[in-house]
Amino acid sequence: MAVYTEVSDEDLIAFVAEYDIGEVLSCKGIAEGIENTNYLLATGAGTFILTLYEKRVDPSDLPFFLGLMEHLALQGVPCPVPVKGRDGQTLRRLAGRPAAIVTFLDGMWPRKATADHCAALGAALARMHVAGQDFQLRRANGLALGAWRGLLEKCLAHADEVRPGLAAALTAELDHLEACWPRDLPAGVIHADLFPDNVFFHHGQVSGLIDFYFACWDIFAYDVAICLNAWCFEPGNSFNVTKARRLLSNYRRVRAFSDAEIEALPLLARGGALRFLLTRLYDWVHTPKDALVTRKNPIEYWDKLRFHQGVKSAGEYGLT
Amino acid sequence: MAVYTEVSDEDLIAFVAEYDIGEVLSCKGIAEGIENTNYLLATGAGTFILTLYEKRVDPSDLPFFLGLMEHLALQGVPCPVPVKGRDGQTLRRLAGRPAAIVTFLDGMWPRKATADHCAALGAALARMHVAGQDFQLRRANGLALGAWRGLLEKCLAHADEVRPGLAAALTAELDHLEACWPRDLPAGVIHADLFPDNVFFHHGQVSGLIDFYFACWDIFAYDVAICLNAWCFEPGNSFNVTKARRLLSNYRRVRAFSDAEIEALPLLARGGALRFLLTRLYDWVHTPKDALVTRKNPIEYWDKLRFHQGVKSAGEYGLT
Repeated sequence: MAVYTEVSDEDLIAFVAEYDIGEVLSCKGIAEGIENTNYLLATGAGTFILTLYEKRVDPSDLPFFLGLMEHLALQGVPCPVPVKGRDGQTLRRLAGRPAAIVTFLDGMWPRKATADHCAALGAALARMHVAGQDFQLRRANGLALGAWRGLLEKCLAHADEVRPGLAAALTAELDHLEACWPRDLPAGVIHADLFPDNVFFHHGQVSGLIDFYFACWDIFAYDVAICLNAWCFEPGNSFNVTKARRLLSNYRRVRAFSDAEIEALPLLARGGALRFLLTRLYDWVHTPKDALVTRKNPIEYWDKLRFHQGVKSAGEYGLT
Repeated sequence: MAVYTEVSDEDLIAFVAEYDIGEVLSCKGIAEGIENTNYLLATGAGTFILTLYEKRVDPSDLPFFLGLMEHLALQGVPCPVPVKGRDGQTLRRLAGRPAAIVTFLDGMWPRKATADHCAALGAALARMHVAGQDFQLRRANGLALGAWRGLLEKCLAHADEVRPGLAAALTAELDHLEACWPRDLPAGVIHADLFPDNVFFHHGQVSGLIDFYFACWDIFAYDVAICLNAWCFEPGNSFNVTKARRLLSNYRRVRAFSDAEIEALPLLARGGALRFLLTRLYDWVHTPKDALVTRKNPIEYWDKLRFHQGVKSAGEYGLT
């Protein structure tokens, strides 16, 4: 939620001149996206998003992210399309940073997701999974199971300050997940961060999936599990099974679940909860208390993890 | 540089339905403006700025600000125009805040202001002063001379930590300004905060003056003095007399300076420097050191104040 890199007007005009999108009319920093600097760029040809990639993005991953968006858009997935310069390239440099221009998508992300939103999301997620299957580039999930132990160890000393007993409980949970994590489930390109603020709706339809900067190669059903965590809990962290049923049933109309995926879903949901719990806990214990940034409370994901620990089968998510 | 108030999609759609500007296509928080929440709003009718007024703005001042922008725009000053709802009103409420929609202006603010920018600014400032003369509402300057003593007293205990001797120097300066501040100079509506980020340019012309939320009734030449401080110093705080000459000579082509204004200009420039020094110093000593907000260094304005203290006449600003 910040502009980390300022761009001078001269630099911007020279940068945009590399494209066939007309001249710059205006350029305003937008307060969305945590990791990168995003500008809303108006030119003679329309409106675009200009992104400057900041330090938390590995430049060597950018061909994967930009190539994926182009690939998905060509398959009809509503996502930003990287704009090519006159040289055919989508990635160049601006103000000392890697930078790209992508198309602007109409729509708003839902501040209060409804069951109808969840239904539309399920279908859109499945279409994205199918569309990504013939994408040729690969990127490992930097926040997969193998990374959680290291994250947890950096938080253990302070975890019990957040909630008494949390350190031991998270250690036991991770031991369990490491022992039982499924190996051979269908995998492909997943979004890995498809929270409501990354999904635009217009007239009740999904009009855009954005922010592919955690996208990677991992288990499809794990992406579904992340969405169950992000979309199907109410304020107070009660689970809304209607939302989950609509999400899952609309997903499987586009891409069928295997029996193994259905069986693994509660475990994957525990993993998805732990992954976000750990990154939030890490930020919580490493951000000064009086810093004027909003630290997301990790306890929200502790509550979600506890819910999934009590789930015996995917039927409790409404999947029959 | 923040979105302080989030707006739900339902609330936004209902709000925009009060206007004849088509349906909402998108709405993105923009990272400009420190005091209020600003969204870039796209509708079927085009692009607008939606502002939610936060706690630092007194709601009773809003009819002045919105009325002034409408008045100036009708006189041909390029500034945002408040959009009227079907009920004829420009001010309503959204998400518990006073809110208004204004027109969007093309152009970019200059990250590196040149002498040409200063020349165009001078003429635009004078046109704004002339255009505001028959505006009927009044608003006192809340950060005029009378407010500086109180600000200074809240900073005195920590001023010498910023620079040894600063407390005594600022006290002496304020004593001098209080004794000598001119009384009968031409006055009217001034912008009072016309820094480069509040002036948009397109093809070298001023395409927009924005952010009228410090506008008030005060001495015209004091507004000019604020611009000398904000536009005519180089990095390192050396004074660029070419920029000042271009600003002042283009101003006086539109609105003539009286002899008394010319004589008072160095003192007004000291006052303008002290006003921004004091608000920056106040923020500096009252913001935690590790807060992730950019505190503007008050010492920049100490250097500017010292420069103006050595100026004997407006001729040193290039005014002959």
